[in-house]
Amino acid sequence: MPANALTSWMALPTAHGYIPGTPFFGATAMIHARSPALGLLFSGACLLAAAPGAQATDPRPERSFATSETFEASEIAAYTGDHAEVHARIDADLDAHVAHLQRWLRQRSISAQDDGIADMAQLLADDLRELGFQEVAQVATPGHPGVLGYYDAGAQRTLVVYMMYDVQPIEPNWRIDDPFAGELVEHELGTVLMARGATNQKGPQRAFLNAVDAIVKTHGTLPVNLYVVAEGEEELGSPNFGAVIEPWLGRLREADGAFFPMNIQNPAGDATLNLGVKGIIYFELEARGGDWGGPATAEVHGSLKALVDSPALRLVQAIASLTTPDGNTILIPGYYEAVQAPSLAEQRLINALAREPNDRQMQQALGVSRWIDGLEGREALVRNLYDPTLNINGLWSGYTGEGVKTILPHVATAKMDSRLPPGLEPEDAFRLLREHLDANGFQEIVIRPMSGYPAASTGVDEPLVQAAISVFNKYGVTLRVAPWLAGSAPFYQFTRTLGLPFVFGGLGHGSGAHAPDEYMLLHPAEGVAAAALADIEKSYVDMLYALAALAAPAD
Amino acid sequence: MPANALTSWMALPTAHGYIPGTPFFGATAMIHARSPALGLLFSGACLLAAAPGAQATDPRPERSFATSETFEASEIAAYTGDHAEVHARIDADLDAHVAHLQRWLRQRSISAQDDGIADMAQLLADDLRELGFQEVAQVATPGHPGVLGYYDAGAQRTLVVYMMYDVQPIEPNWRIDDPFAGELVEHELGTVLMARGATNQKGPQRAFLNAVDAIVKTHGTLPVNLYVVAEGEEELGSPNFGAVIEPWLGRLREADGAFFPMNIQNPAGDATLNLGVKGIIYFELEARGGDWGGPATAEVHGSLKALVDSPALRLVQAIASLTTPDGNTILIPGYYEAVQAPSLAEQRLINALAREPNDRQMQQALGVSRWIDGLEGREALVRNLYDPTLNINGLWSGYTGEGVKTILPHVATAKMDSRLPPGLEPEDAFRLLREHLDANGFQEIVIRPMSGYPAASTGVDEPLVQAAISVFNKYGVTLRVAPWLAGSAPFYQFTRTLGLPFVFGGLGHGSGAHAPDEYMLLHPAEGVAAAALADIEKSYVDMLYALAALAAPAD
Repeated sequence: MPANALTSWMALPTAHGYIPGTPFFGATAMIHARSPALGLLFSGACLLAAAPGAQATDPRPERSFATSETFEASEIAAYTGDHAEVHARIDADLDAHVAHLQRWLRQRSISAQDDGIADMAQLLADDLRELGFQEVAQVATPGHPGVLGYYDAGAQRTLVVYMMYDVQPIEPNWRIDDPFAGELVEHELGTVLMARGATNQKGPQRAFLNAVDAIVKTHGTLPVNLYVVAEGEEELGSPNFGAVIEPWLGRLREADGAFFPMNIQNPAGDATLNLGVKGIIYFELEARGGDWGGPATAEVHGSLKALVDSPALRLVQAIASLTTPDGNTILIPGYYEAVQAPSLAEQRLINALAREPNDRQMQQALGVSRWIDGLEGREALVRNLYDPTLNINGLWSGYTGEGVKTILPHVATAKMDSRLPPGLEPEDAFRLLREHLDANGFQEIVIRPMSGYPAASTGVDEPLVQAAISVFNKYGVTLRVAPWLAGSAPFYQFTRTLGLPFVFGGLGHGSGAHAPDEYMLLHPAEGVAAAALADIEKSYVDMLYALAALAAPAD
Repeated sequence: MPANALTSWMALPTAHGYIPGTPFFGATAMIHARSPALGLLFSGACLLAAAPGAQATDPRPERSFATSETFEASEIAAYTGDHAEVHARIDADLDAHVAHLQRWLRQRSISAQDDGIADMAQLLADDLRELGFQEVAQVATPGHPGVLGYYDAGAQRTLVVYMMYDVQPIEPNWRIDDPFAGELVEHELGTVLMARGATNQKGPQRAFLNAVDAIVKTHGTLPVNLYVVAEGEEELGSPNFGAVIEPWLGRLREADGAFFPMNIQNPAGDATLNLGVKGIIYFELEARGGDWGGPATAEVHGSLKALVDSPALRLVQAIASLTTPDGNTILIPGYYEAVQAPSLAEQRLINALAREPNDRQMQQALGVSRWIDGLEGREALVRNLYDPTLNINGLWSGYTGEGVKTILPHVATAKMDSRLPPGLEPEDAFRLLREHLDANGFQEIVIRPMSGYPAASTGVDEPLVQAAISVFNKYGVTLRVAPWLAGSAPFYQFTRTLGLPFVFGGLGHGSGAHAPDEYMLLHPAEGVAAAALADIEKSYVDMLYALAALAAPAD
């Protein structure tokens, strides 16, 4: 039902919807927003030839595939564990479970505006204690506090559950009066909970805790030990998440995996499970008059250009030196070489994704007439996953008002980012950029780093991933599995800092993250295949038991 | 007294002083502002070698000089006509003459805000009738009205006097309460008339009419026939000046020259007489997603750069293709070739200007540590006069606020201008720019022309120029003469549309055009050599008689 998938896509962030206000990368928004549509992207005709529009001097390394085999998610055995008692408890308590979601959504927690943050942190900590977490602590950080919880079940397996308790600011044009009223709304897809944070991320997180509650109430304890590591600054780019996990770093590293509850189904019930994210460097490039030339303190009259260096032209030249004239191939030496080549396992994932051509649909949804170099199908998938990017997010200098003003501005600035596939480290990216600028005579161009972190990816063969897929299969979800997203999130904190396999996903459908009318679907209408709240919670129960049933760790 | 010259410079437009509000090129401001300091610029060690930093592939044509002779303004005989009776009348009526200036300055006439425009046009027309102009007419235009006047003296010679009756808007930080009070203020340089329009341009214009008044009152008529052609939109870029002169076009073309009264002395009494201006094209370059690629209707998420063309990067690449990496040499084929080579007469002017090295002083005043390519002296003069420029006035795309936002913007725009020395026509400049962009694959980049007009220059050997210099010499003014300014003004209307020699200048000192505390010096303090109002008016009297005394026209 691709029309529905597109509806879901279209309901999502429009031009200014991603990051209203001051927030950061909107990692969760991008995952939420893009998951159904990125699913469409991970498909297309299977082409092996080089891109038709590729540069003669294309610095991209050869990316020929050694296998034409495909990864088949459906071939992983569906989870068969029987937890009927717990499931029945969920059905019995469903009204109370919905009320828990509403209670969370009614508590404001806008991180960018420090609105309700302290109360939400307290609410989360209280809920963990209520659920039986023996250790619960708030962690002070230079920003908003973190919340740590540990449920010691005396089990062999331990899972770290990541949570974000903050939400985006409110933008205009909601169809409900109060995005913090936690209202149930009749929607074309069924009964939805419409509220800021409904799907990003309180809804699925509290649904997960409802599952925990049902298990504990049924069996008195959990099948796995559970850490909750929660931050209140995800929407600000997780600047202090390192400080949040620092107190329990040694303990967390002993866990078997990390999990982030997330609604990843589209209305048709399909889902794309992304096993990682790209990294990013975000920075400003600035040219300013100084010893090298140009006006140092203020703009001068534009007619002086015959004698005076132009910082704006220098910035333009510096940026232009970074790419081919089409803006699509990065000319920084070493930039592509650092990227890891597709592993055999990744090749199988991509071969599977490439079977359904959907480039045109993605392009339509984005308002884009073509991909760069006329790419499509598997080629587009490979570029999207393995190409580092170089992008101008913003650019400004001098007079930008109406009409004519004749000045030679003394400063020019660009906000740029580069997405980093696994292998290309942020510190290397910054270093290669600086070296390139210096080697090309742009010593005066300042690089002002604003953020940077590496990619994160978890192998599809990891037991935690296999367990997750087995649960999806139990619920009949048609699952695409991608090695990672083209977007970025600081998930390296799990894969690298904690050294754990990391899964972000789960049954359920929601939309509108970072946009008006955010919702999570609770009771699907006839013909809508995405899971109902009860099934979402039951799948989380199954996930925990599936993890508990994993073969013993190597040690 | 270079310190004073710099003081005069420094008192002038600062960063945002040129064009507050909506106005246009600020041609008069630039002339006012730059005259004393540009005088400093037109000097320097006499170097013939190529610029040290010049590109190996420098497309500039050879500009070797065929003469080392210098033009000596002081060798032109001082004007010797005796008009003692008229001069005495000026002395006797001086209080009334000051009152006329004050009356003009008290009448608001801010063109950008349509504030007092109609009243000022009426006041000017009434004054011309009062002075005895037999024909006076207001000319309706799509903008503010023009005023035409003709004084038929039955003389052999005819002079066209250009006037602008509009002024700039008021900016904050004036030291007087009301910039339209027409106040006399005690200033370190002497008694000044401080008001918006005092030097730009009402003061010198009404001083000129005071001179006319004195002649008519003394002798009953003028030594030359006089046209006044006045517009109320100079500060808006003279968009309708063609319509203003259109009704009398045939008649005006029969005149012997055109004149624009202007205070061009610095406090030390020195002056630079510029015999022309560069032309200009001003335009926006824009890249916008469309059929060629990129997002067509709205920004998309920045992580999509791996697949989606970036209009911002394309704009950057297109602009970068226009210049060498240093931003200082234009790579548009044919752009330099169209420029006229320095004539022998111009070479003599430049040789004279190059005798006093003042690059450092100019650089200090501008806050610039060096000229491009390390230029100095005559080389800098030649580049400044004969190089077309390419300049970014403004540049914008995407997110330009605080912090981080990850978008791929769908549109990017630059405001650019190119100054055109004589020979390079605006329509050719636009054509060459388009051809260059097309030839380099930038067909999708839109050029949005906003203004364009050619250079204007009058030869130093023209009798009108020689007459003007003879009058400067009579008053002991040390005069630098430059072929033209690096700045732009639509003076082609005189040199090309009317086909007349054109002189803009005159005794007198003022400062602060387009800036707070604009003034015209009326009564210089002890040791300040710039002319007093009485001498300014007497020099205008002498100018008119000097013109009348010119040898009969060739026909």
